[in-house]
Amino acid sequence: MYSVTVRDHMMVAHSFRGEVFGPAQRLHGATFVVDATFRRRALDEDDVVVDIGLATRELRAVLAELDYRNLDELPEFAGVNTSTEFLAGVIADRLVERLDARARGIDGVAVTLHESHLAQASYEREL
Amino acid sequence: MYSVTVRDHMMVAHSFRGEVFGPAQRLHGATFVVDATFRRRALDEDDVVVDIGLATRELRAVLAELDYRNLDELPEFAGVNTSTEFLAGVIADRLVERLDARARGIDGVAVTLHESHLAQASYEREL
Amino acid sequence: MYSVTVRDHMMVAHSFRGEVFGPAQRLHGATFVVDATFRRRALDEDDVVVDIGLATRELRAVLAELDYRNLDELPEFAGVNTSTEFLAGVIADRLVERLDARARGIDGVAVTLHESHLAQASYEREL
Amino acid sequence: MYSVTVRDHMMVAHSFRGEVFGPAQRLHGATFVVDATFRRRALDEDDVVVDIGLATRELRAVLAELDYRNLDELPEFAGVNTSTEFLAGVIADRLVERLDARARGIDGVAVTLHESHLAQASYEREL
Amino acid sequence: MYSVTVRDHMMVAHSFRGEVFGPAQRLHGATFVVDATFRRRALDEDDVVVDIGLATRELRAVLAELDYRNLDELPEFAGVNTSTEFLAGVIADRLVERLDARARGIDGVAVTLHESHLAQASYEREL
Amino acid sequence: MYSVTVRDHMMVAHSFRGEVFGPAQRLHGATFVVDATFRRRALDEDDVVVDIGLATRELRAVLAELDYRNLDELPEFAGVNTSTEFLAGVIADRLVERLDARARGIDGVAVTLHESHLAQASYEREL
Repeated sequence: MYSVTVRDHMMVAHSFRGEVFGPAQRLHGATFVVDATFRRRALDEDDVVVDIGLATRELRAVLAELDYRNLDELPEFAGVNTSTEFLAGVIADRLVERLDARARGIDGVAVTLHESHLAQASYEREL
Repeated sequence: MYSVTVRDHMMVAHSFRGEVFGPAQRLHGATFVVDATFRRRALDEDDVVVDIGLATRELRAVLAELDYRNLDELPEFAGVNTSTEFLAGVIADRLVERLDARARGIDGVAVTLHESHLAQASYEREL
Repeated sequence: MYSVTVRDHMMVAHSFRGEVFGPAQRLHGATFVVDATFRRRALDEDDVVVDIGLATRELRAVLAELDYRNLDELPEFAGVNTSTEFLAGVIADRLVERLDARARGIDGVAVTLHESHLAQASYEREL
Repeated sequence: MYSVTVRDHMMVAHSFRGEVFGPAQRLHGATFVVDATFRRRALDEDDVVVDIGLATRELRAVLAELDYRNLDELPEFAGVNTSTEFLAGVIADRLVERLDARARGIDGVAVTLHESHLAQASYEREL
Repeated sequence: MYSVTVRDHMMVAHSFRGEVFGPAQRLHGATFVVDATFRRRALDEDDVVVDIGLATRELRAVLAELDYRNLDELPEFAGVNTSTEFLAGVIADRLVERLDARARGIDGVAVTLHESHLAQASYEREL
Repeated sequence: MYSVTVRDHMMVAHSFRGEVFGPAQRLHGATFVVDATFRRRALDEDDVVVDIGLATRELRAVLAELDYRNLDELPEFAGVNTSTEFLAGVIADRLVERLDARARGIDGVAVTLHESHLAQASYEREL
């Protein structure tokens, strides 16, 4: 199995509901450094998994919808905690859709969000 | 599949038995930067894999049993080489037990120990 | 010249005033990974620059005043842009005061805030 | 499953054929920081996956065939784009052969090439 | 003293003249991850050292002149070894000129090029 | 001012004397990832600060005297705490001597030891 990973980041505000979150119930923020991975069982006719330029542009387009936002104000996230792992899932699903990944022969996608030097979360799915 | 990873470290002394280890047969030491990963097929009712605060505290508790120790003196490791990969397995198993991971809905655990900028080792198991 | 650096982080929300900031004028957030450096021309009687445990605790205490906060709501920052470099200066000055750094023989302090994998800012002062 | 990863690097020149590659069609170059991972279901009699010294030497031997080369001039790569993912596959296959990995009880190999702070590619195979 | 650092990278081919360089006398290549640092004794009226967006754009413009090139073919580098430290100096000087750094109140510039996980080089100058 | 930095590491055991060190008074260990920096006001006739191959070999030679050792048993460190900052000074001084740095036109040397992802220490001296 081959894979290619590209990196970008976003800077958002948000808060969490639930006592388990302690001080993170207050409005705070995070830089999420985002790694998007594309998997393919065999290389394509250009000897790549996916064009890195294309992958980078589509990742930027997906992140631009969230970047420099207060996630608490986005209607699509009403009633949900925008945890790092939840956001990894959202970004992965949106990437799959934008890239029309299955049609391009991509066999799997994974997204990892690094929220600090001490914690990260991921979501991966096969296509 | 979702996952969350938290990081901590420990600083231990130890030595290895076996000519294959060369100078590492002498008493020496290592900083192990430890990444503990928890996997879950679906998010829980708080929209997370596991509470990061809880995961961090339990990882600290597991590492505290080894931190600032000479592993050669711990009876539980008598007759074994405390290689990086062996320690990854020990830490993963202890984390699973302390967290009662299966009961919490955790589907898998992985532990990676970075021993330098050039080498790391991991152990992963499904639950 | 000797130095010791310890690392911690904070997660804050804030916004900027001024057209130069573009989308960062909206309420957003950041993880700041913070490196605090203490310099000393000669080592002390314990052969160190400063006790790492003490330095780590005082850095945590300084960051705790800002962590998980919306900086726009803190009266001490009214009328100022809480840029990464500005915050580096604030944290450095507070560390010097809390540690009573000059009395401890510290000759200089530097603070670096990493706001992403692409940008960081610092402030340093001699004592 | 246990694993061990060792790191080395190589510095090569090459160019790509195909309009999708844009300016990378020109002769340029890259530092590839290479992580080679070896997997084993159980530890061997020395309590390791593979001797790290041996793994490091064999990885160096494989990279030495490519290091400080213009890949466009190597006959073995005629007619192919030496993309990061393609090279990961080449290095993995050569490592498996040199190490006689299956005979050593290795159950899987993965190779990751970091081409910058923003992009990396991998190839993994079971044995 | 305040500072801000922004990061970008370039991928170039080149070769060195002189027996001291060993195999690096052959045409090879490198990814240079480039950190550009701007220093200022006091913050400006926006409470920053320099607009990060501007700094990032100008660094990109400077690197674009070298990116995806064979440096051996650039007339400006005829008769010189394009070592990592030499390139750091070139990039720093070009940045100072493009940004008209002195006029903007910048008091110093430093440029670091990371050529691998094992080596880097820098050039710094006061203005 | 130009500089070049090369990286290596060592894995040692040691203990500290003094209540301030808490659990680090027990025999434990550390991986020290070591960055050695050489500074020069102008480049030499090969357009470099120092040959990276030479710098790397000399750093290895200096570290080999300490690597895989219990520092508590080395007579040269009797009666001193082998703190990270103290070791940075020892390594810098030994490097200056081995390289005959002043005679080579080196204007300054700095050594940084990373003891974990959270702490590092440095020593620098002009020549």
